[in-house]
Amino acid sequence: MSEEFLIAPDPAAPGLSREVEGVDHEGARRRIRVVEERPLTIFLNAQEIVTAMTIGDYPRHLAVGYLRNQGMLRPDDEITAVDHDEELGVVVVRTRRATDYEEKLRRKTRTSGCAVGTVFGDMMEGLEGLTLPPAELRASWLYALARKINTAPSLYLEAGAIHGTVLCRQDQPLVYMEDVGRHNAVDKIAGWMTLEGEGGADKILYTTGRLTSEMVIKTALMGIPALASRSGFTAWGVEIARQVGLTLIGRMRGRRFVCLSGEERLIFDADPAAVADEPEALRRKGARE
Amino acid sequence: MSEEFLIAPDPAAPGLSREVEGVDHEGARRRIRVVEERPLTIFLNAQEIVTAMTIGDYPRHLAVGYLRNQGMLRPDDEITAVDHDEELGVVVVRTRRATDYEEKLRRKTRTSGCAVGTVFGDMMEGLEGLTLPPAELRASWLYALARKINTAPSLYLEAGAIHGTVLCRQDQPLVYMEDVGRHNAVDKIAGWMTLEGEGGADKILYTTGRLTSEMVIKTALMGIPALASRSGFTAWGVEIARQVGLTLIGRMRGRRFVCLSGEERLIFDADPAAVADEPEALRRKGARE
Repeated sequence: MSEEFLIAPDPAAPGLSREVEGVDHEGARRRIRVVEERPLTIFLNAQEIVTAMTIGDYPRHLAVGYLRNQGMLRPDDEITAVDHDEELGVVVVRTRRATDYEEKLRRKTRTSGCAVGTVFGDMMEGLEGLTLPPAELRASWLYALARKINTAPSLYLEAGAIHGTVLCRQDQPLVYMEDVGRHNAVDKIAGWMTLEGEGGADKILYTTGRLTSEMVIKTALMGIPALASRSGFTAWGVEIARQVGLTLIGRMRGRRFVCLSGEERLIFDADPAAVADEPEALRRKGARE
Repeated sequence: MSEEFLIAPDPAAPGLSREVEGVDHEGARRRIRVVEERPLTIFLNAQEIVTAMTIGDYPRHLAVGYLRNQGMLRPDDEITAVDHDEELGVVVVRTRRATDYEEKLRRKTRTSGCAVGTVFGDMMEGLEGLTLPPAELRASWLYALARKINTAPSLYLEAGAIHGTVLCRQDQPLVYMEDVGRHNAVDKIAGWMTLEGEGGADKILYTTGRLTSEMVIKTALMGIPALASRSGFTAWGVEIARQVGLTLIGRMRGRRFVCLSGEERLIFDADPAAVADEPEALRRKGARE
């Protein structure tokens, strides 16, 4: 199963998690595995852009993807170098084009209580006139993807407290990225697509994060016409999805899901009764979406 | 039970959620309630600081709390006005002190893949020499708080896809704030504390969000010596908690929890076997922490 993944989490890789000691509710001593987070400062040419807290496994992909999703790297930009200094915790992305984003950096949007998100006006501008390519989405693909993704070894299964996003094609997960924040995970995917020259038109994006406006906008700007999540929706996320022709699937667990955008592109080619209910162990421990 | 809350979610309040139509996994038409998110631009005196995406129920608290948690409003600042223009989606916080945060605004940290977080260096600086007041934490309080909070009417129970943070004292939830992003929910609490002149030393902060470094730092800077969550930990969050003397409880569900900092302040005065396992309906649908 996991041989289908081009990139999949490697929970055993050093430095991504650590064991910590404490006590449980009965006062018994316990050793718990918890994920690491460390700062990574991203430069675009000579300009310091942001410091991201990340598990640190794909710093180059994160830097390139972040800059793409912020609109600071353009689709036609020639990247001349991506230099990572692990000791300093710095990545420098260099382009042939001279860049200066002083103004853009000053105007920030916190989205969903998060983010150095794209400036609000810029976000909506990027969407103007955007219509995603119509693409059918088969329920059988969704079920297959969920099964393969949920059973792949992951930091989530090892240590929890982490988000995952997976770039897929039909029923094949391709690139599965995890990180402490869902936006990092998405940006790593965008970075991979940029560095590999892969487009989004034939892809599906699967995420554990909520389908907020920012998540929907990023997916659309990455050119991906279908977005699926275990989690729920926001009203604006749904509106934007409908506006750009993105098929939006949420609350996806076991055999259940809800489609609030693009149902006309959805093909019910699976018998839900034949899909096992989600095993107890996989019911994402927790909390809210 | 909910009469103990000074502030509790009001899911029926207009404008916080909306019904949207779609289809489910069987192709049947469904109406789903989803939370709203709308932009709120926060000004400090004449300076535009950030645009936050929020459900919009406590704009003044969010603005004040955001500025406090970013270190732009100081504990001794005199707030002369907090003006909210609903139509424009703007809040202006005015202080007697003249302010200018050009430099600070330029240097942003994305934390946990999120945020216009506090500049990284500033965050760690604010913690230097900080030691929280030692405060006992009773397991019986944790169980009582979880029960009262989980059964209070909330947008989460109505529409999902939302985070909640609750300021508590012993076994009493006091101020329960929700928002699309967990950082908004925490900031609303900080805003309430600032506007009401309430300190944190005798409080517990309960959150549905993950116990990342940023969450731990915010709690510490709010002067609150105990932080509990349904969700999990990061290694840095645990380290910081230990450094500042914050009691850190995570993976709290039903009778279970794990304490990775401050176990010496934890009093096991409850019989876990007497605590009901979490009812099915409350098992937070989904996804990752």
